Amino acid sequence: MEKFELHILGCGSALPTMRHQATSQIVNIREKLFMIDCGEGTQVQLRRSRLKFSRLNHIFISHLHGDHCFGLIGLISTFGMLERTADLHIYSHPDLISLLQAQIAFFCKGMSYKVIFHPFNPKEQAVIYDDRSISVETIPLCHRMPTCGFLFREKPTLNHIRRDMIDFYRIPLWMINRIKEGEDFITDSGETIPNKWLTTPSDPPRTYAYCSDTAYYPRIIPQIHGADLLFHEATFVNADETRARQTQHSTARQAAQIAHDAEVKRLVIGHFSARYDDEKQLLKEAQEVFPATLLAQENLQINL
Amino acid sequence: MEKFELHILGCGSALPTMRHQATSQIVNIREKLFMIDCGEGTQVQLRRSRLKFSRLNHIFISHLHGDHCFGLIGLISTFGMLERTADLHIYSHPDLISLLQAQIAFFCKGMSYKVIFHPFNPKEQAVIYDDRSISVETIPLCHRMPTCGFLFREKPTLNHIRRDMIDFYRIPLWMINRIKEGEDFITDSGETIPNKWLTTPSDPPRTYAYCSDTAYYPRIIPQIHGADLLFHEATFVNADETRARQTQHSTARQAAQIAHDAEVKRLVIGHFSARYDDEKQLLKEAQEVFPATLLAQENLQINL
Repeated sequence: MEKFELHILGCGSALPTMRHQATSQIVNIREKLFMIDCGEGTQVQLRRSRLKFSRLNHIFISHLHGDHCFGLIGLISTFGMLERTADLHIYSHPDLISLLQAQIAFFCKGMSYKVIFHPFNPKEQAVIYDDRSISVETIPLCHRMPTCGFLFREKPTLNHIRRDMIDFYRIPLWMINRIKEGEDFITDSGETIPNKWLTTPSDPPRTYAYCSDTAYYPRIIPQIHGADLLFHEATFVNADETRARQTQHSTARQAAQIAHDAEVKRLVIGHFSARYDDEKQLLKEAQEVFPATLLAQENLQINL
Repeated sequence: MEKFELHILGCGSALPTMRHQATSQIVNIREKLFMIDCGEGTQVQLRRSRLKFSRLNHIFISHLHGDHCFGLIGLISTFGMLERTADLHIYSHPDLISLLQAQIAFFCKGMSYKVIFHPFNPKEQAVIYDDRSISVETIPLCHRMPTCGFLFREKPTLNHIRRDMIDFYRIPLWMINRIKEGEDFITDSGETIPNKWLTTPSDPPRTYAYCSDTAYYPRIIPQIHGADLLFHEATFVNADETRARQTQHSTARQAAQIAHDAEVKRLVIGHFSARYDDEKQLLKEAQEVFPATLLAQENLQINL
């Protein structure tokens, strides 16, 4: 299978702690890196991950709270010092643009590459990125400011050729792509060889849904239904549900309920409040509802 | 002696590494904390130091390169979340003000405390802070943009009272301060008791000089002469002196030469280039010129 990995760079919440970094993740799809959120300290975490800076061309910002975007200027500045030349694309709420542009103009004079902003409306579900192999959709969420998650959706790939059958029927090279696309083969003697003899089915396309920050918000369920992996914030334990409601965050149980109802394959919870010394209780509460839950942690890597 | 401590929060240079944090220091004078520079990640380093956030009211920014100020907005934002009420004073080149104010206005709405800017001209030597116990002076430096260091100068304190002599001569309470200030005492019988019998000399006032970033710049020597501690940047080893000159940084030997010529008591070097895997060579080269040199490192604390 082609590479589709999630790297957690930081999974803390607004107040910094010595245990967790501010929010940031990398989705690695076939060695193209996509960053989600960029809290303070992200560039050091990215270095620690040993992922190649030069493979990162697209950054998606869920919302404009500091713990999700204060690391951008440092990252952009460092890329400049490293004499990057490729454009860097930033997808965010439009309000980020003027703030960040003012900083770039002052701190990154004569930069060797361009930062290109792609503003989007977090309240609308829309495809904001699309290439040959994946698309990225916004997932409108419910938080104290306009916020959305992101759905990374792999595109279906062509069937795999069975090399032995191709050799056996002496199928010419120019036919191969048509067979991958599903055509049957007709031999010189007029015999039809059904496509299913010649190919094996391609890997089913995978999806990763990132949902942070958000209150419990079942409206997202149809959109993320059946995802291979769901990251859902779980800032609080159940006992702090009132606090979760006030701040428009989720409890671990609520995150698990979403995972359960959306019938996703696996759930990873994060965005942990600074008030907890460890996350065992959060994991326990989530697993009671959705057993296939794991805890985010810095430098964790999950293969989809 | 009253407390006068330096805490190194970060001593790396522009490119982040996993070994060093971006530049920041805390000067702790009698439990008043003064921050010098505030690179990305400083707030986490401050937490790690276990110094009390509430004791920090004054931040001095040497110059507006990102590795010296990108941590400000995160720190300011966190202080807001912690419901700080005391004013926070920031001393910097005037260009910082509008950039940071725009960020504060957007990210820190309804903040519980005020940030007060004190712009200064880094090209002039001037006292920019003054209270009962210390003053802070700018030290104009030589770098690619307007930059200054800071000289923390303790004020002379009054002589110490000798409790045994006060009791012996039955000196009344209202006379004590005058004796601390140097007056003699005249007994009821008309005998003059010289002040030196009644007091012991106060501790000599201490000074800490912070000089970063700068090329080798002997013009600072008279101002920092005799300092108890000098922090001087030593970005490069001697072999990279050409690079040091191009980027207007110093080598370890140049830092030590300044320390030697200024007859300071101790030198601590920092702002290490990301190109070195360890700093032994820098230390060796500095100590050849000025033996009382030590290497900065994160979480190092030095008592003056």
